[in-house]
Amino acid sequence: MGAKWIWYSGDYEVYHSMLLHARRTEYDFAFGPMWHVSRPEMSAYFSKNITVDAPVTAKAVSKGFGYVKLDERRICALNEEFTIPAGSYRLVVNVTNLETFPSCFIDAPGIETDETWTGHFNEAHPKPVGCNDAFTCVDQDPAVFPFSYKPIEIASANEVDGGMLYDFGQESFGPVYVTAEKSAGTVSVYYGESEPEALSMKYSYLREHIPAFDGEKKLMSRAFRYIYVRTENAGSVPAIRAELEYLPLEDLFVFTSDDARLPEILKICSNAFHLNSREFFLDGIKRDRWVWSGDAYQSYQVSRYLFNDPDITRRTIRALLGKLPVLQHTNTINDYSAYMFLGAWDYFYASGDIKFIADIWENLVGLYDFIVSRLDPETGYVVKQEDDWIFIDWADIDKDGPLAAEQILLYNVYTTMDKLTAALNENGYAALAARVSPMVNKLAGAGETYSEKAETLKARIMKDFWREERGGFIDTYASGREHMTRHANIFAILFDFVPDDVKEVITQSVLLNDDIDQITTPYFKLYELMAFARMGRMEVIQDYIDSYWGGMIKNGATSAWEEFDPNKEGIEHYAMYGEPFGCSLCHAWGAGPILLLGKYCAGVKETSVGAKTFEVAPVPGRYTHFEAAVPMAGGVVNVNYADGKVTVSASIPGGTLKWNGREAEIPVNQFVTL
Amino acid sequence: MGAKWIWYSGDYEVYHSMLLHARRTEYDFAFGPMWHVSRPEMSAYFSKNITVDAPVTAKAVSKGFGYVKLDERRICALNEEFTIPAGSYRLVVNVTNLETFPSCFIDAPGIETDETWTGHFNEAHPKPVGCNDAFTCVDQDPAVFPFSYKPIEIASANEVDGGMLYDFGQESFGPVYVTAEKSAGTVSVYYGESEPEALSMKYSYLREHIPAFDGEKKLMSRAFRYIYVRTENAGSVPAIRAELEYLPLEDLFVFTSDDARLPEILKICSNAFHLNSREFFLDGIKRDRWVWSGDAYQSYQVSRYLFNDPDITRRTIRALLGKLPVLQHTNTINDYSAYMFLGAWDYFYASGDIKFIADIWENLVGLYDFIVSRLDPETGYVVKQEDDWIFIDWADIDKDGPLAAEQILLYNVYTTMDKLTAALNENGYAALAARVSPMVNKLAGAGETYSEKAETLKARIMKDFWREERGGFIDTYASGREHMTRHANIFAILFDFVPDDVKEVITQSVLLNDDIDQITTPYFKLYELMAFARMGRMEVIQDYIDSYWGGMIKNGATSAWEEFDPNKEGIEHYAMYGEPFGCSLCHAWGAGPILLLGKYCAGVKETSVGAKTFEVAPVPGRYTHFEAAVPMAGGVVNVNYADGKVTVSASIPGGTLKWNGREAEIPVNQFVTL
Repeated sequence: MGAKWIWYSGDYEVYHSMLLHARRTEYDFAFGPMWHVSRPEMSAYFSKNITVDAPVTAKAVSKGFGYVKLDERRICALNEEFTIPAGSYRLVVNVTNLETFPSCFIDAPGIETDETWTGHFNEAHPKPVGCNDAFTCVDQDPAVFPFSYKPIEIASANEVDGGMLYDFGQESFGPVYVTAEKSAGTVSVYYGESEPEALSMKYSYLREHIPAFDGEKKLMSRAFRYIYVRTENAGSVPAIRAELEYLPLEDLFVFTSDDARLPEILKICSNAFHLNSREFFLDGIKRDRWVWSGDAYQSYQVSRYLFNDPDITRRTIRALLGKLPVLQHTNTINDYSAYMFLGAWDYFYASGDIKFIADIWENLVGLYDFIVSRLDPETGYVVKQEDDWIFIDWADIDKDGPLAAEQILLYNVYTTMDKLTAALNENGYAALAARVSPMVNKLAGAGETYSEKAETLKARIMKDFWREERGGFIDTYASGREHMTRHANIFAILFDFVPDDVKEVITQSVLLNDDIDQITTPYFKLYELMAFARMGRMEVIQDYIDSYWGGMIKNGATSAWEEFDPNKEGIEHYAMYGEPFGCSLCHAWGAGPILLLGKYCAGVKETSVGAKTFEVAPVPGRYTHFEAAVPMAGGVVNVNYADGKVTVSASIPGGTLKWNGREAEIPVNQFVTL
Repeated sequence: MGAKWIWYSGDYEVYHSMLLHARRTEYDFAFGPMWHVSRPEMSAYFSKNITVDAPVTAKAVSKGFGYVKLDERRICALNEEFTIPAGSYRLVVNVTNLETFPSCFIDAPGIETDETWTGHFNEAHPKPVGCNDAFTCVDQDPAVFPFSYKPIEIASANEVDGGMLYDFGQESFGPVYVTAEKSAGTVSVYYGESEPEALSMKYSYLREHIPAFDGEKKLMSRAFRYIYVRTENAGSVPAIRAELEYLPLEDLFVFTSDDARLPEILKICSNAFHLNSREFFLDGIKRDRWVWSGDAYQSYQVSRYLFNDPDITRRTIRALLGKLPVLQHTNTINDYSAYMFLGAWDYFYASGDIKFIADIWENLVGLYDFIVSRLDPETGYVVKQEDDWIFIDWADIDKDGPLAAEQILLYNVYTTMDKLTAALNENGYAALAARVSPMVNKLAGAGETYSEKAETLKARIMKDFWREERGGFIDTYASGREHMTRHANIFAILFDFVPDDVKEVITQSVLLNDDIDQITTPYFKLYELMAFARMGRMEVIQDYIDSYWGGMIKNGATSAWEEFDPNKEGIEHYAMYGEPFGCSLCHAWGAGPILLLGKYCAGVKETSVGAKTFEVAPVPGRYTHFEAAVPMAGGVVNVNYADGKVTVSASIPGGTLKWNGREAEIPVNQFVTL
């Protein structure tokens, strides 16, 4: 292992999250984050007990200021050469950096900075340092996010109404470079995900007016397919070029079938997902560009089926957790706090990475404490407290009382804390696990274990929200309206909150019941489709993929949209949130088909922590044949279905093929057919 | 009231504390803070419900970026003019500032930014904004601390060993300007509080090597009396000039007596105190330049008797509290956390400023929770936990078990929380007071009030630490050594922990007992002298002032030193902490005589919250006459003692003269003699 840049645990993510959340603009307004965003530390001590057999000469390279200490003796300033004689020492590097965050890099035999170092304030709060495989060179700076760049070709350029309209052929994200002469006066650049958006000027979400200049200017990275450029004065036309700013993540997922539209559909899904996979998982690249926990929870899952880069998931979880104390629910939304636990478990179950769980445990416990401190003391239910946003979905849910959907999420918070605590205990982190919830937890049900809390809550939910005669959960019992929406019922299936026979009842009486309002957001629609998948209703999913994503493509989509309504016409498609171009044409949640087809149609999924075992349980639905390559546990599983038979091979061990009531082990790199 | 710059409550102090704690250098090392230092917010929402009778045009001026919102409508970006029609609205300003901290200024009739605005993250955590009377002009920036500057005359300049030695005549602090020619090569500037320090070069604490340059360079503000300049190459000698960086605080305190040395002694005390009264109260200006809670607690008290500027005290308390969560004891020291409560009470008792207590209440509760969470669960005592520093004093205290001195401080934490909670309840902050200690407090003695906790603790302390037969408190009972030092005994007197007759016993058997080790630090010596003063032993104090401060002056002091030992000779005086020039020659705690003479000899002190009443109870000691002017409650009290009589006048009401067992009211601006 070579040297890595190190920093105080979490600071890299906190710093880049800070920058990201300060970059949102709408029309001519800069739009600061709607929630509390943490800042990184200003100062840190990095240390390690080292033993060197021969003298070693090194430098503690850093953009900050500070010193190097050997045992109790300060030996030099940062960026100065020092020599350590053979022997055993405590090596400490003190770094202060007010500009970005404290980091440091030592590359010399036996004293390389890496994950074996500890970061702390003075000697207090020692934690393993943060580091990242992307930062292993001395000339790097962890304050500069390591994006890749490549030119984007201009597909067409046309004069329109005295300005130039450039079409880059597909949805993109990156810096635009403008070359102009001063005589042109102010240069105005209007960005559009669609042509009408770029040309509207007044309603182009993203735009910049650059005072007269000579030469080339680089504009901040933004979303666009179209760029419309106008100048204050007639005369020379500015030249523009653009680069794609991206992470070089390779798609491992392949899925083809007798449905000829699938390749194109999966391509726009992949495009949208890659464009939103940046420092963190974004929901959309144009408008809000913030990190949202609910949307991210879906992205964690989709990403594993597309390119499986666990680092974005880790970065996103850390950015959303921020620094203690917890001052608000995640994104101010109660349900979004709960998804943090589901997301942590989802990551751990797929990766087995207990070190990451240990690294974030203090923050998870802080968030758990915050949630529990705001429960209704009498019922133990999640209720709206001051500053809370009970969201669940943009839908006509009766929120006049505690919501069933919120309580089912809370049940999952309890069961997740139970499972993660057990995992810490089993993996050498018992001392850390014992630090659970030193405060609030004891107040809200002294002595109760997480699983006891979960069971108490479940019994109460069933009594208060379940309606046996209607075969589903109502929104809330408090208002007396007895209104039923799909949301809690979808959760009940998805999170195994009820036994299988009850899930089937819910599927019939709620999910397949047209009298219950349809889900209107693609965000929650993905949960519903996952619920259908869990119930084996693959045709429902396949039909929906065709009509919804197929419909987008017919309307010119080059990446998956935030929303699509087949009943709309022309530029109506681009409107949302009361704004003519409010709809994002590149939204991560639009990438759901990748997850739906990989996990449920090809049927490839983990069956134990760390994906030590996995299953391939295909549900072809209405496809007469399909061929899939699905990433799993760092390898790939190939699944071919044709003529009623399934043939599978896998590059990793632990697989079981399940087909037609039969099971077969999947030996590594050998074909198995059932 | 005019407009003021506003910011998220506490951010001004947190930001300047961050800068201050990043400025320490020693020899050639930058020395980051030894504890966790908070950073300010990156983004804030400022809001107010306004009503304007006529249209008003204004700008939200800010160095950050963001927008102005009227009800739910964003109307313009920052620094753009907007007009509000007559009517009632919610006006919101969103500011993001990654460089410094979010602040904003609106100066237009009816919508001025001032303390009536609210600051919050989104709509959460609304608090009154922070603001300061020093920032009322549109062209100011709260990120620039409003110091005053004036030239310091050079008293002498002499060539020494190929360099130039400048003497500025007295201890100073500020920027030094160097004018040089490039041909001189690197210019080295060595700072000295003493001549030997400047000339030692190797051991000059502060120094800077400036690569060859032409013209004038401004160096960062540092402490000095002497400046020694050398150049790499022979030839032209750089010119230097210097400025004093200071706060224009006017001394209100005057004290003269038959002791002819007093004026000079009080002058070096005042010098030292002014030089250390900056963004916050520093302990010394040369070496560590950080903010220490124990030292600051003494400065709060001294400052009231010298210039009475409550804003430095408020700033210092806020800087020390920082932002939640509490990760360590204040300055990592258990006793220093306790002084935060004593300091808050001291400030409140003198000022009656309940709004400030309300502003910092959340942080005080956080610190209280932290303290209580680390008590020994069995005894309820303060004990050394991981990362704690049980300090009390540099002295031979038996720390092999819980310390009596720490427990007496904890007793004061309980009683202070009790008094502050009552004050909040009585002054319209009941809702805030009810938020006390939501967590830990309930664990450690559920249902107990603060005063019950205090009484339980006191009984236990008396049982475990008090030795009736020896007339004093031992350090700790745990080791069995039964060792007795002065510290806990001094606290017992100072904080009225024992009845008056027991205080007298302690005075005789401990304070006046030469078999008990003498206090060696001027820091704790001040507490001891205050204890002597409380016991009416004014001669002890007067003798000590003469020998200790008088001794410094004989050794050339122009400001009060960190330490003075009459047994040392020549440059031995400058050594401390194992470094030849480790002793600070300008230390705030050296200003004690101001407090001792004003509060105890002239006898002027508050007797109720907000100094609504005060007493003048002189204790002349060995002075045959004295004349004093003592600041009190925004006014001044004049006290003349001569011929066995005391004459008093005061510019503020509420005073009572106590002399020779008699009492008399002090009418405003009239003389009273007893």
